[in-house]
Amino acid sequence: MKQAKIGVYGLGTMGSALALNFAEHGFDVAVSNREVDWIPDFVREAGSLGSHIVPCETLESLVGSLAIPRVILFMIPSGKPMDQMIEKVLPLLDQGDTIIDAGNADFNATRRRFADLQVKDIHYVGMGVSGGEKGARHGPSMMVGGTTHSWQQLKPMAQAIAAKFEGTPCVAHLGPDGAGHFVKTVHNGIEYADMQMIAEIYGVLRDGAGWSAHDIGTMFAEWNKGPLQSYLIEASAEVLHAVDPETGQAMVDVIQDQAGQKGTGRWTVIEALKLGQSASGIEAAVGARSWSADKGARELAQSILSGGTLAQDVPDQRTLAAAFEAARILAHAQGFAVMQAASEEYDWALDLAEIAKIWRAGCIIRSELLDDLAEVLGQKMPAGSLVLSDKLQPRLDTGIPALRKVVGAAVMAGWPVPALSAVLGWYDSLRCGRGTTNLIQAQRDFFGAHGFERVDAQGRHHGPWGTSET
Amino acid sequence: MKQAKIGVYGLGTMGSALALNFAEHGFDVAVSNREVDWIPDFVREAGSLGSHIVPCETLESLVGSLAIPRVILFMIPSGKPMDQMIEKVLPLLDQGDTIIDAGNADFNATRRRFADLQVKDIHYVGMGVSGGEKGARHGPSMMVGGTTHSWQQLKPMAQAIAAKFEGTPCVAHLGPDGAGHFVKTVHNGIEYADMQMIAEIYGVLRDGAGWSAHDIGTMFAEWNKGPLQSYLIEASAEVLHAVDPETGQAMVDVIQDQAGQKGTGRWTVIEALKLGQSASGIEAAVGARSWSADKGARELAQSILSGGTLAQDVPDQRTLAAAFEAARILAHAQGFAVMQAASEEYDWALDLAEIAKIWRAGCIIRSELLDDLAEVLGQKMPAGSLVLSDKLQPRLDTGIPALRKVVGAAVMAGWPVPALSAVLGWYDSLRCGRGTTNLIQAQRDFFGAHGFERVDAQGRHHGPWGTSET
Repeated sequence: MKQAKIGVYGLGTMGSALALNFAEHGFDVAVSNREVDWIPDFVREAGSLGSHIVPCETLESLVGSLAIPRVILFMIPSGKPMDQMIEKVLPLLDQGDTIIDAGNADFNATRRRFADLQVKDIHYVGMGVSGGEKGARHGPSMMVGGTTHSWQQLKPMAQAIAAKFEGTPCVAHLGPDGAGHFVKTVHNGIEYADMQMIAEIYGVLRDGAGWSAHDIGTMFAEWNKGPLQSYLIEASAEVLHAVDPETGQAMVDVIQDQAGQKGTGRWTVIEALKLGQSASGIEAAVGARSWSADKGARELAQSILSGGTLAQDVPDQRTLAAAFEAARILAHAQGFAVMQAASEEYDWALDLAEIAKIWRAGCIIRSELLDDLAEVLGQKMPAGSLVLSDKLQPRLDTGIPALRKVVGAAVMAGWPVPALSAVLGWYDSLRCGRGTTNLIQAQRDFFGAHGFERVDAQGRHHGPWGTSET
Repeated sequence: MKQAKIGVYGLGTMGSALALNFAEHGFDVAVSNREVDWIPDFVREAGSLGSHIVPCETLESLVGSLAIPRVILFMIPSGKPMDQMIEKVLPLLDQGDTIIDAGNADFNATRRRFADLQVKDIHYVGMGVSGGEKGARHGPSMMVGGTTHSWQQLKPMAQAIAAKFEGTPCVAHLGPDGAGHFVKTVHNGIEYADMQMIAEIYGVLRDGAGWSAHDIGTMFAEWNKGPLQSYLIEASAEVLHAVDPETGQAMVDVIQDQAGQKGTGRWTVIEALKLGQSASGIEAAVGARSWSADKGARELAQSILSGGTLAQDVPDQRTLAAAFEAARILAHAQGFAVMQAASEEYDWALDLAEIAKIWRAGCIIRSELLDDLAEVLGQKMPAGSLVLSDKLQPRLDTGIPALRKVVGAAVMAGWPVPALSAVLGWYDSLRCGRGTTNLIQAQRDFFGAHGFERVDAQGRHHGPWGTSET
């Protein structure tokens, strides 16, 4: 019986696509699934690639059919199911074997599992996979955590199946334990912000200028030919051009305005806060989705709340494009700042340039911008801040005034632009060499005796105020 | 030997103040402290109240000197120290005794400790105490969780020492397990937002209009005479009027603009996100403090980043006041929405009106506004939303246009107003009966096959787009 190079457990959309991708690149893949009847269906789907597929009806036979040290990739629901799976597979494994969790997982759980298994000399890899079914099948972007031992096993296969940017595979071993899942989480967080800012531009044109979905789609299609090129802009153009077969209306006009979310956006914001950061653009995107859920309250609010708005002209397309470009740079900068902070906190030594490089193809946020960021992040940045890099100044110099015009008009007209205004608020806070938290420190010392630093002396000081509360 | 009614362990600023407050109201208090030499100092400080103080050198003697069932209030650092203390005291206690954690604690830890002790029939109370040293000594606002059994023990003492609003004690049993600490956390979150929005108004006047700290303080002192009256506005006026004895400058002008934080603001935002909410105004306040820490980057940024700003006139005082009033209502509404969501999630049946009532005196965010909110929250609100209550519409009708003017000018001029713009962004999102997340749902279905709902049919649907990724 042939010894497969890798095992794939979980033959849902993503798992099947990855298994076929491995097979297509000549790697023998042992596959299994909880529902055994999915397995023959998968083998049929594999067609001529079947010669590289080793179907296994049980976890035991999957493990038994793998070359040692074993590498088993799990694509199953995160959380408890993964913990239960580890319990089941652990007795079947030998020291030096590797378990890969290729789903989206909370990196805290990944770190815990890594540590629990490390003492047994079983290697646990949290691997972020972006690009979806199509990407998984023909070339995903993959963010790999775990040990070097695991990476050495996985590397040739991962590099073979990964998306290629100008020939370079979009996969890297980013760091130990939870580094891969953390970076994937932030990838998704940036994706949230990017999607929300696109939706805000869409809303300004739809509600402010009365543009049709089709015309807005045509504008995004134009944007996609220039420096704003990105998969999400391209996708926006396509969905805005799509027509509903049932009603003949623009598809987006018959879609309910209530957005779902699966946690990665929220995780990014939460981890940012825990790290003493704020990914405010991503928070605004998560918030917008959360608020959209309560359709009843919004419909009621529309009838109750006097907007107190002032009619505004919608800024022209060039201004909107420049504003979006600046906002997108700021949202990416917030995401990279969170990864930098995590890298220091968890001692990961993340290579931010490498991360940008593996995001240039295969993943959902792939864009022209990431190609530029890969270069910028590879050089020394003032105060380690992406926003301060001289390479980006020309774009911000044109983009920021445009962003002010768009946000300013939206604020007066009542068009909601929470993400666009959040990143601008961050930019303006950053620009203040002398901010206003001196007043906050004064208040905290006044009522809490927390003390403060002085601009002209070392140490902790207190104010001359009489009273003191906490 | 006299049997004390309550034990207080931890004679720091807050613990001592609470102990003296109990004693002053005629309750015999057994006190102890890790550093035993603090105890005689405290007794000396107690002076004539000493007759009600039972000093105990050990935890054992503290427990031994209490009437049964025992009530012991701990005012010690949260986290591990509290867990270690529980381990130490547990063997000394009997069934029916109550442990109170009166510090700021993560309500998740409080729920865990409550559950762990419940099986031993030991009662654990998470109690939020606001008002600081002065409040603790002469009348704090207290938010009590835990069992009814504990509340019956604590109630007469708590009501005696609590701040009074028109005779009503500012203390209540809000719900089981972590309810008290959760509500205190949100109280602090609202405090963060309120302080940040005050600092933003201060910044607009300082940097936009060149006002002196003293003149800005005088404006806040004026505000404090009207509907904007609040402890934090009063405190702002006082600190802005304070003069540095060393330099003769305004005190705030020599205070470093780097704000500290202890976690409650961050916790509020994190719990909001976990509950599918967004307290964006509080998030902006937490973010502003976090960003302020990196002074070096800000000073560099000021020299590097071209603001792309347009000079603006600072709106007049009446406009600033109306804008602040609206923004403060919105920030409070976000906080109460988070508590409502938590109440449903954890089955607490929180009485929001009662919470507003016990915040009317003693605590840091006490204000005229809370008196009004107590009334509004006691009535049925459209869609359960504070912002939609008709009582608040007249204020929002005048406040929101002013808020647009202030945020609009700040956006163009480059004055950072992240919190003011965040709550306005929420208000405008809420006003959209038809929002823009339909585009986000289209994108998610396009690349992730997540599916969407239609406006004209039940069930989950997919778009006509060819490609599909996740």
